[in-house]
Amino acid sequence: MKKIRIGLIGYKFMGKAHSNAYRQVGRFFTPKAIPIMKAICGRNERGVKEAAENFGWQEYETDYKKLIKRDDIDLIDITTPNNSHCEIVVAAAKEGKNILCEKPLAINLKEAEEMLKAVEKTGVKHMIGFNYRRAPAIGLAKRLIEEGRIGKTYHFRSTYLQDWIVDPEFPLNWRFQKEIAGSGALGDLLAHHIDLARYLAGELIEAIGMDKTFIKERPISLEADGLTGKAGKEKGKVTVDDTTLFLAKFKNGALGSFEATRVAPGRKNCNRIEINGSEGSISFNFERMNELEFFSRKDLSYAQGFRTILATESEHPYISAWWPPGHTIGYEHTFIHQIYDLMNDLAEDKMPTPNFLDGVKCQKVLEAVSNSIKTKGWAKI
Amino acid sequence: MKKIRIGLIGYKFMGKAHSNAYRQVGRFFTPKAIPIMKAICGRNERGVKEAAENFGWQEYETDYKKLIKRDDIDLIDITTPNNSHCEIVVAAAKEGKNILCEKPLAINLKEAEEMLKAVEKTGVKHMIGFNYRRAPAIGLAKRLIEEGRIGKTYHFRSTYLQDWIVDPEFPLNWRFQKEIAGSGALGDLLAHHIDLARYLAGELIEAIGMDKTFIKERPISLEADGLTGKAGKEKGKVTVDDTTLFLAKFKNGALGSFEATRVAPGRKNCNRIEINGSEGSISFNFERMNELEFFSRKDLSYAQGFRTILATESEHPYISAWWPPGHTIGYEHTFIHQIYDLMNDLAEDKMPTPNFLDGVKCQKVLEAVSNSIKTKGWAKI
Amino acid sequence: MKKIRIGLIGYKFMGKAHSNAYRQVGRFFTPKAIPIMKAICGRNERGVKEAAENFGWQEYETDYKKLIKRDDIDLIDITTPNNSHCEIVVAAAKEGKNILCEKPLAINLKEAEEMLKAVEKTGVKHMIGFNYRRAPAIGLAKRLIEEGRIGKTYHFRSTYLQDWIVDPEFPLNWRFQKEIAGSGALGDLLAHHIDLARYLAGELIEAIGMDKTFIKERPISLEADGLTGKAGKEKGKVTVDDTTLFLAKFKNGALGSFEATRVAPGRKNCNRIEINGSEGSISFNFERMNELEFFSRKDLSYAQGFRTILATESEHPYISAWWPPGHTIGYEHTFIHQIYDLMNDLAEDKMPTPNFLDGVKCQKVLEAVSNSIKTKGWAKI
Amino acid sequence: MKKIRIGLIGYKFMGKAHSNAYRQVGRFFTPKAIPIMKAICGRNERGVKEAAENFGWQEYETDYKKLIKRDDIDLIDITTPNNSHCEIVVAAAKEGKNILCEKPLAINLKEAEEMLKAVEKTGVKHMIGFNYRRAPAIGLAKRLIEEGRIGKTYHFRSTYLQDWIVDPEFPLNWRFQKEIAGSGALGDLLAHHIDLARYLAGELIEAIGMDKTFIKERPISLEADGLTGKAGKEKGKVTVDDTTLFLAKFKNGALGSFEATRVAPGRKNCNRIEINGSEGSISFNFERMNELEFFSRKDLSYAQGFRTILATESEHPYISAWWPPGHTIGYEHTFIHQIYDLMNDLAEDKMPTPNFLDGVKCQKVLEAVSNSIKTKGWAKI
Repeated sequence: MKKIRIGLIGYKFMGKAHSNAYRQVGRFFTPKAIPIMKAICGRNERGVKEAAENFGWQEYETDYKKLIKRDDIDLIDITTPNNSHCEIVVAAAKEGKNILCEKPLAINLKEAEEMLKAVEKTGVKHMIGFNYRRAPAIGLAKRLIEEGRIGKTYHFRSTYLQDWIVDPEFPLNWRFQKEIAGSGALGDLLAHHIDLARYLAGELIEAIGMDKTFIKERPISLEADGLTGKAGKEKGKVTVDDTTLFLAKFKNGALGSFEATRVAPGRKNCNRIEINGSEGSISFNFERMNELEFFSRKDLSYAQGFRTILATESEHPYISAWWPPGHTIGYEHTFIHQIYDLMNDLAEDKMPTPNFLDGVKCQKVLEAVSNSIKTKGWAKI
Repeated sequence: MKKIRIGLIGYKFMGKAHSNAYRQVGRFFTPKAIPIMKAICGRNERGVKEAAENFGWQEYETDYKKLIKRDDIDLIDITTPNNSHCEIVVAAAKEGKNILCEKPLAINLKEAEEMLKAVEKTGVKHMIGFNYRRAPAIGLAKRLIEEGRIGKTYHFRSTYLQDWIVDPEFPLNWRFQKEIAGSGALGDLLAHHIDLARYLAGELIEAIGMDKTFIKERPISLEADGLTGKAGKEKGKVTVDDTTLFLAKFKNGALGSFEATRVAPGRKNCNRIEINGSEGSISFNFERMNELEFFSRKDLSYAQGFRTILATESEHPYISAWWPPGHTIGYEHTFIHQIYDLMNDLAEDKMPTPNFLDGVKCQKVLEAVSNSIKTKGWAKI
Repeated sequence: MKKIRIGLIGYKFMGKAHSNAYRQVGRFFTPKAIPIMKAICGRNERGVKEAAENFGWQEYETDYKKLIKRDDIDLIDITTPNNSHCEIVVAAAKEGKNILCEKPLAINLKEAEEMLKAVEKTGVKHMIGFNYRRAPAIGLAKRLIEEGRIGKTYHFRSTYLQDWIVDPEFPLNWRFQKEIAGSGALGDLLAHHIDLARYLAGELIEAIGMDKTFIKERPISLEADGLTGKAGKEKGKVTVDDTTLFLAKFKNGALGSFEATRVAPGRKNCNRIEINGSEGSISFNFERMNELEFFSRKDLSYAQGFRTILATESEHPYISAWWPPGHTIGYEHTFIHQIYDLMNDLAEDKMPTPNFLDGVKCQKVLEAVSNSIKTKGWAKI
Repeated sequence: MKKIRIGLIGYKFMGKAHSNAYRQVGRFFTPKAIPIMKAICGRNERGVKEAAENFGWQEYETDYKKLIKRDDIDLIDITTPNNSHCEIVVAAAKEGKNILCEKPLAINLKEAEEMLKAVEKTGVKHMIGFNYRRAPAIGLAKRLIEEGRIGKTYHFRSTYLQDWIVDPEFPLNWRFQKEIAGSGALGDLLAHHIDLARYLAGELIEAIGMDKTFIKERPISLEADGLTGKAGKEKGKVTVDDTTLFLAKFKNGALGSFEATRVAPGRKNCNRIEINGSEGSISFNFERMNELEFFSRKDLSYAQGFRTILATESEHPYISAWWPPGHTIGYEHTFIHQIYDLMNDLAEDKMPTPNFLDGVKCQKVLEAVSNSIKTKGWAKI
């Protein structure tokens, strides 16, 4: 059995999710290559050492530059804050390492393009972590769309609503700082929906947006990650958007509406998309990720309605590896599926999807949205 | 155009709903006969006079015996408390009047059978007010079932949950007194579900039940109807069930589960039924009365799910008379549909359904449930 | 009891809904003035005569100019195609008639302002038919918002999705012709949402939109109204939008997202709005018009969630006139509530709301959206 | 750190779920003792060897008698067919091993009591695998109930609906044979609901049931487990129930309704319970296992409704170990939580719950239900 030796950089939220995926993939699936959890890397030695133990890594490193030079690593997986992606990718590519990088690819288009150039130059394999493509219900949506079951696409409608920062006392961490995160809801949330839009409805060609930071100052977090963290009395300035919305036009003539916010009380991870076509519709909400809503104009005329498909049948994507029908899976499974596909691609020397090209295309949309906000006019993508 | 002259007895909740139906039916439908709102009858002159004006009746009476003798009345409609149904029906039938009677037909089987005998003897037309049969979604369910779309029936499952008497201070009115109401949740709520079970799944042959009165005393209502009424300090004894449940077997081999309660907080008129068959399922909840859930095993294998059919298309029962798709109707419309069907039947000299025979069959089930509770064993129906 | 004598112009979909409201209002409510259904008016004598009988009008007219001059008419109600509103309003105001006019007020802002000027000049009372304000759940939303229960408004999000013209064979009627309808989804559907936005979240100050006509030609309807109508072989050009979307900024700092389409398969009258504030959220979908979703950050921390409030309790707006809790109402009831409020206002010589000023403000937004589409930039409102 | 060395018997569906729990518990939680995956045991050497590798066990055994005698095993975990539980438990208890046994405890009450006696005699710790207690939403329900938030319990209502055997061609495996499984839907599904009823609503004292085998013959499975398996042409007799329903009375006066079926098309793992009390209600459906519905009569009178609580906040049971709010978990997590609690109890020498006493009490209900079916009368529990 082929083995892929992994070096993971970052050990917080995403580091935990990726580690779990590497550990679990071979327990449920039979990928053509098996990941070996070689080393995890972080700057705080105490933290990364503990993470290595907890998450099941053989070793740890505190300097990513050392990690990427190691001969016993085949794949570098990057889950660090967005502003570090470019530097690490360029360096890792130079070392000939295959790369999995979390989204958004970079904090701006220039960096993203530099990253794509770097991996293309050295010919390494690359993937971007748009994990929602790997929800079985989304895979099913893709299938139904490709089979023509909703016809020609008219509308792509997305809302990605969260409420975790609606409390003005929620502490300021790196995700609120433009120089590190690049943007707020835009890059964190809409990047996912832009990717799903491209995956399910096609390329976007023009956009116009608006954004807002409702809460402009927050107490500074006393923790690096600060996701659940404590804060002191000192306040810092929020330099990213709490919310971004944009309208878009697709190459195929469809119209798109996108909205992401982190200040919608009661919406926890309400990652919702709907696509209407000439023959039917599909609708998905990640809070009920095992379900896909599907409407077909071809159903019996007096018995048409949105069907709630529980995407837990063995013929649904990825499900045969898991449990019987109705025994649902969760958020973390999307990452396991991602690694499953990645391992298969690497084993067969195929370029994974979505990859850095998708990352760049997504970044182009993000950049166009930002530009449209600045110029107060439509921006070409 | 043929005309049917109506005499309505009772002017409270049901009297109001029936009056509305007579007023409205010709405004939206084109029934083969038109109801003429001749006279409304009640013992309290002030009350019935006001009702006559409000509801649109030409005249009023204070003695039902006078009403049923009038030559200018073709149909007697009975919406009085349950213990008066028998006397009125027997008398009205003797006068050769056609009759619409609210459910439950009577306070016991003996009376119900007497009533059936009375109408059969004089050959008048008769109907019982199981209005839920006339919800478009239920009509659609009937159609799907008759077309074989759920196959052979395995399960009939009903819960009729309300919470209007969960407050122990809710006043005691006639609906809490066995000698007037016959029973509580059993006759008031389960009568509807027994009828729907017979309509959609077939005859019941055996039952076993249990019941309970959780709140045994209540302040006595100061109003006759007492639906929203004020109460004094004096307390009275509740002599009917707050809740009744029973299991049943159907002639066709299906199994049934029935439950009705008036003390389920948050459930307002949660009149819910589900039928599972060998090929599919249907599910209905009156709180969302415009919707029918339908599952078919014949759908594409990887795209099966319960469909939420919004039963507001013009090809759904009764809907073409109303509004465009998605423009929903409400509770009162079931009564209008009932009168529409009744007028058509009377115009064509046909026996309406459901009629007193259905009322008796329902009463047999109610009686069997009561018996099974007394004897603590299964009761034949 | 004061009486208001009504002259209704138009006898199709809206004419039917308004007629029903006049007939029903006094049967359930006790308004301070009672509407007298004096005359209905339409150009086709056969049609209007039949409508007069069916809907319960005392007389009919075939020329609106005659109608508005009649001494025995107090209120002119206009439900004709949009391009005729202005002419009729100006004429009726001159005659000193109070006016109820269907939305959108006019086919453009110029006409709308002319209409407002006309009614203000002669000092008549005026109202515009934004009936959705009168859904009890919307009234409840208004109350919760005014009580501060969702805090400071951050987001107003609306989608108004229908599918009745997704079939390219659906016939072309006046609603598809710009010179008569003014616009398509924009004026027909978004006008409602702009009004709800103003009612629940405040004034809009800036907008940018996009629109599209997906199906550019349709067979020409053989009926005047053509709502369910038959079509011939000849095709005509659709000159209004099938769909319009826009982003907007509110005076109070909130951000708005609006979308309306008539080509979203499975969405029948999916008139959905959501408002997120600093302390909570509310959500509403007309397809389940008896329900309001409400989230409060003040609920017990570990028991927070969107509550599905069944707005059928007697303390909810308008409900005490109807049925017990859980016994739902439908689309037509919003019109009855509208007439109830209108009668009360006229009886007390108060200006109704929403009135032509609201109509003009709504039209300003519609015009700004249209302008923003033409100029491809943000438009001030 | 204390270590608990595990010997797992059975390597099919439940063996896979339990293995995953042992592997994962220490990756997310910090239990007071860590499980060591010592050995897995099964009769088919090829199968168990493969399972050992896939699931992460150090060794395998083919004879459970050998396994339970090993000195390096602290806990025996039993996931074999029901008819083998008793023999293994008695033997393992004799060897002084702590025991986790899957539900139902045994195929009849006699065996269950023998098992309880055996563990009590040797004083080992014991637990039964009612994993649904460990869904965070159920833990939250328990908390709300214990805090008195739904008041005095009136109703416990459960339906456990599946459809995996509705196809008559679904192959016959051990689960359809009375001598191995004990019963069908009764022991497999209702055992869970009886446990949840006891956990959330109290002890049951009387029951009456009915059951049915709708499909009496099936093609015999060619695989041992046969969950997804292929079948030959030969048919075998189904000797267990496809469905069982029963009514029950609780010691505290509440009434219960229970139903389980495996032939309800469209219901996959519709494990649904609802409890109504004097002050509120809770409702849960495992197909949306991250959600709990809660209604409180103490909410603002005009804003009451069932709240959909997404039980993914860090203050909800077990959740702080997982992901941010709204990032849902799945079926397998209930097993991880079970092992977390078990490890903590064993580390502190405490008796876990639910344990064999709970298993016996559940079995008493199952036996009473069976008896009531045989005698056609109520059975004391």
